Amino acid sequence: MSSWIDEEHCGVRYGLKGETLVEETSAFQQIRVIRSERYGRGLLLDGCWMTAEQQERHYHEALVHPALCGAASIERVLVIGGGDGGTARECLRHPDVQHLDMVEIDGRVVELSQEHLPGIGGSAWNDPRFQLTVGDGIAWAANAPDQSYDVVLVDGSDPAGPAEGLFNRPFFEHCRRLLRPGGVFGTQSESPEAFRDVHIAMVRLLREVFDHADPLYGWVPMYPSGWWSWTFAAMGTPRYRMPDPKRAEMIGEGCEIWSPRWQRGGMDAMPAFIERELG
Amino acid sequence: MSSWIDEEHCGVRYGLKGETLVEETSAFQQIRVIRSERYGRGLLLDGCWMTAEQQERHYHEALVHPALCGAASIERVLVIGGGDGGTARECLRHPDVQHLDMVEIDGRVVELSQEHLPGIGGSAWNDPRFQLTVGDGIAWAANAPDQSYDVVLVDGSDPAGPAEGLFNRPFFEHCRRLLRPGGVFGTQSESPEAFRDVHIAMVRLLREVFDHADPLYGWVPMYPSGWWSWTFAAMGTPRYRMPDPKRAEMIGEGCEIWSPRWQRGGMDAMPAFIERELG
Repeated sequence: MSSWIDEEHCGVRYGLKGETLVEETSAFQQIRVIRSERYGRGLLLDGCWMTAEQQERHYHEALVHPALCGAASIERVLVIGGGDGGTARECLRHPDVQHLDMVEIDGRVVELSQEHLPGIGGSAWNDPRFQLTVGDGIAWAANAPDQSYDVVLVDGSDPAGPAEGLFNRPFFEHCRRLLRPGGVFGTQSESPEAFRDVHIAMVRLLREVFDHADPLYGWVPMYPSGWWSWTFAAMGTPRYRMPDPKRAEMIGEGCEIWSPRWQRGGMDAMPAFIERELG
Repeated sequence: MSSWIDEEHCGVRYGLKGETLVEETSAFQQIRVIRSERYGRGLLLDGCWMTAEQQERHYHEALVHPALCGAASIERVLVIGGGDGGTARECLRHPDVQHLDMVEIDGRVVELSQEHLPGIGGSAWNDPRFQLTVGDGIAWAANAPDQSYDVVLVDGSDPAGPAEGLFNRPFFEHCRRLLRPGGVFGTQSESPEAFRDVHIAMVRLLREVFDHADPLYGWVPMYPSGWWSWTFAAMGTPRYRMPDPKRAEMIGEGCEIWSPRWQRGGMDAMPAFIERELG
């Protein structure tokens, strides 16, 4: 019953051998859940690979721990997107988190992830600190009070379709407004190779909106080119560059990819062609 | 006429849309030259992606410059493999190189690369410092005099087929023997994800044979998982960690990926699961 399930992007395809378990169209997008031979169960939205059980930690550890180990306090966390639950799970591994709001636009992504990819959200779904809102994260960011979060994380898909509004100045300005002093903002920031122009524009814009913004380079094999980035931003001090040793030690033991060393490397590993653009 | 040209590896495939220009079987392997829409012309050996015109610098800059910017002297360089010419081209950009021996087992790879991928070898093929020997690099390493090279680079394919002998202790011991004091050895060392066990075993073995050996992590989108490594080794001092500022400045201007910053990052960016194995 096995066949190839591919994402095509600009004359390149990345495919996993497996079978489709669910295929449906929600109010926002086409959703497909698959079972792959190599990486366990996986999720595609509008034909683009989002995650898979044995590959998701590359992405979620990279998005979460630079922010959660860096912010001055991490009592209140906001996650925009993140419907598979992996970002919330990694955040809630930090015992200092007291409340996490997750605002995901597509309730079907949450329901299908809970049913078919339960290991990705793990215990987050039942954590008393976890509050799910199915709704528009952009409106949430516009309406939440000033200085209401210590960390704001954006775990959205590519800047087309429902995630388009997660890549512009008004949204980033609201994210800055939401942060308490010593807070950290983090977002996936696309591939420096397959989405080079979007990546460069995002880092530049975040540098205009925040005092500091720096990309971290890593790998998500199933994403276009496999080479990915996350960008962190802060006011005052680039705290995301300096993981708290106590938090880092405790969290690092359970990480597959992230460590303070890996993070420092990923922030230095800016390729020359991007460094010439970003300085 | 365009169709998908894929490499399959353990239930994953990476494909480029394009057409096959040449397909033949040499004495050593199946050789295929293609033209792709996204990355220009490319080369596969035994069905595995080797290189493509608009993607090759990820690989060649990473293999060459940590060694060529780090070694005490770089008068004499040995390249084993490297039939597409890209490694030789990057080495010969260093004006201090006076002689480069390249020993490639498969003369047809060289001929087809010269004909169809002329930009990858570039001016190397006609450089008076360049000496090509079509022959067995393992025998060359065994027979060359002690301390006859400043830098030894291994640019071979995966450890199956003709490249198998490039991954074992007797070969590495000869490479060490060939190095002059202050010399640097470098080799591609597979993917920490798709070839995790081979990668870990190579770094461990190089650490037994040399005083110092350290992997550098980077990206070659067309290789399995896209996440790749190169390992550098030296006696006495790990000179490959300390690029000579003068050489680095001159070479860096023409690089797409490599810079001293990128290299430092790539050496730090060891994922936690590998750091736990290698210490």
